[in-house]
Amino acid sequence: MTSLPFPTAPTKDALERGEVLAPKFDANGLICAVTAHADTGEVLMVGWMNAEALRLTLDTGDVHYFSRSRQELWRKGETSGQVQRLVEARIDCDQDAVVLKVLPQGDGGACHVGFRSCFYRVIEDGQLVERAD
Amino acid sequence: MTSLPFPTAPTKDALERGEVLAPKFDANGLICAVTAHADTGEVLMVGWMNAEALRLTLDTGDVHYFSRSRQELWRKGETSGQVQRLVEARIDCDQDAVVLKVLPQGDGGACHVGFRSCFYRVIEDGQLVERAD
Repeated sequence: MTSLPFPTAPTKDALERGEVLAPKFDANGLICAVTAHADTGEVLMVGWMNAEALRLTLDTGDVHYFSRSRQELWRKGETSGQVQRLVEARIDCDQDAVVLKVLPQGDGGACHVGFRSCFYRVIEDGQLVERAD
Repeated sequence: MTSLPFPTAPTKDALERGEVLAPKFDANGLICAVTAHADTGEVLMVGWMNAEALRLTLDTGDVHYFSRSRQELWRKGETSGQVQRLVEARIDCDQDAVVLKVLPQGDGGACHVGFRSCFYRVIEDGQLVERAD
C-alpha cells in the first residue's frame, strides 16, 4: 500500500492526543482490530489489519482484515455473506489497536464455527463452557 | 511458567469445541486480551498476556498483562490503583484471544492518558476526534 501510507506520529503527545491517524503497526505490519456489534456492544471477534486492510475498511465501510495464517487480505463476508458494515471506528491511546462497531450482514453471525460471536465459551474453573447468550 | 503450562489442543475440533483451555500463544508467547466493562460492555483496552499473566488472572481474579514494551508481567492497577477485578473471561474459537469482563477499581478508569477507556478517539474522515462518551 505504498500509494496511501499512514504517517508516523512525531511525538508521544501527537500519538496520544493528536488528530492525525498514525497507526503503529507491529513488526509484522499489523494492528489488532476488535469488532463489536454496533447495537449491543457485544465483542464479536478479534482480527488483524495491515495498512491496506485498515485503509480499505475506512474507505469502503466494509471491514477488511489481514489473515495471519493465510497471509492475505480478506473482506469479511466475501464467502460467508457475513459482511461487516462499519458504523464507527475508534483507535486507542497508543494507536496500535482499533475498535470497530459494525452491523453484521447475512445471517448476522461473525464466527465460522456457527456462533454469533467468536467468544462463545466462558472459562469456568479452568474449563471451557459454551454459552452463546 | 514451566510449573503451570497450558496444554495444546490435539485437534481442530478440540480447539474449537472442546472443554480444555488450550490457548494458542503467538511466536512471542502472547495472546490478545480485550478488556470490557462488566456492567456496560464498553471496550476499555487491549492488552497482551503470556501464559503466566493468563494463569495469574484466572487464579487471582485481578487482571495481569504482559507489557511488550517493557517485556514484563504487570498487575493492572499496581501503581495507578485502576485494578481490574475479573467478572467473566471468554476465549474465542481458535483460542488466541480472550475477552475479559471486569469491574475497574480506583477511579474507575483504564487508560493512562486519563480517559475511562483507551478508545477515546473516533476516526472521522481520516482524522481523530476525541469523544469519550
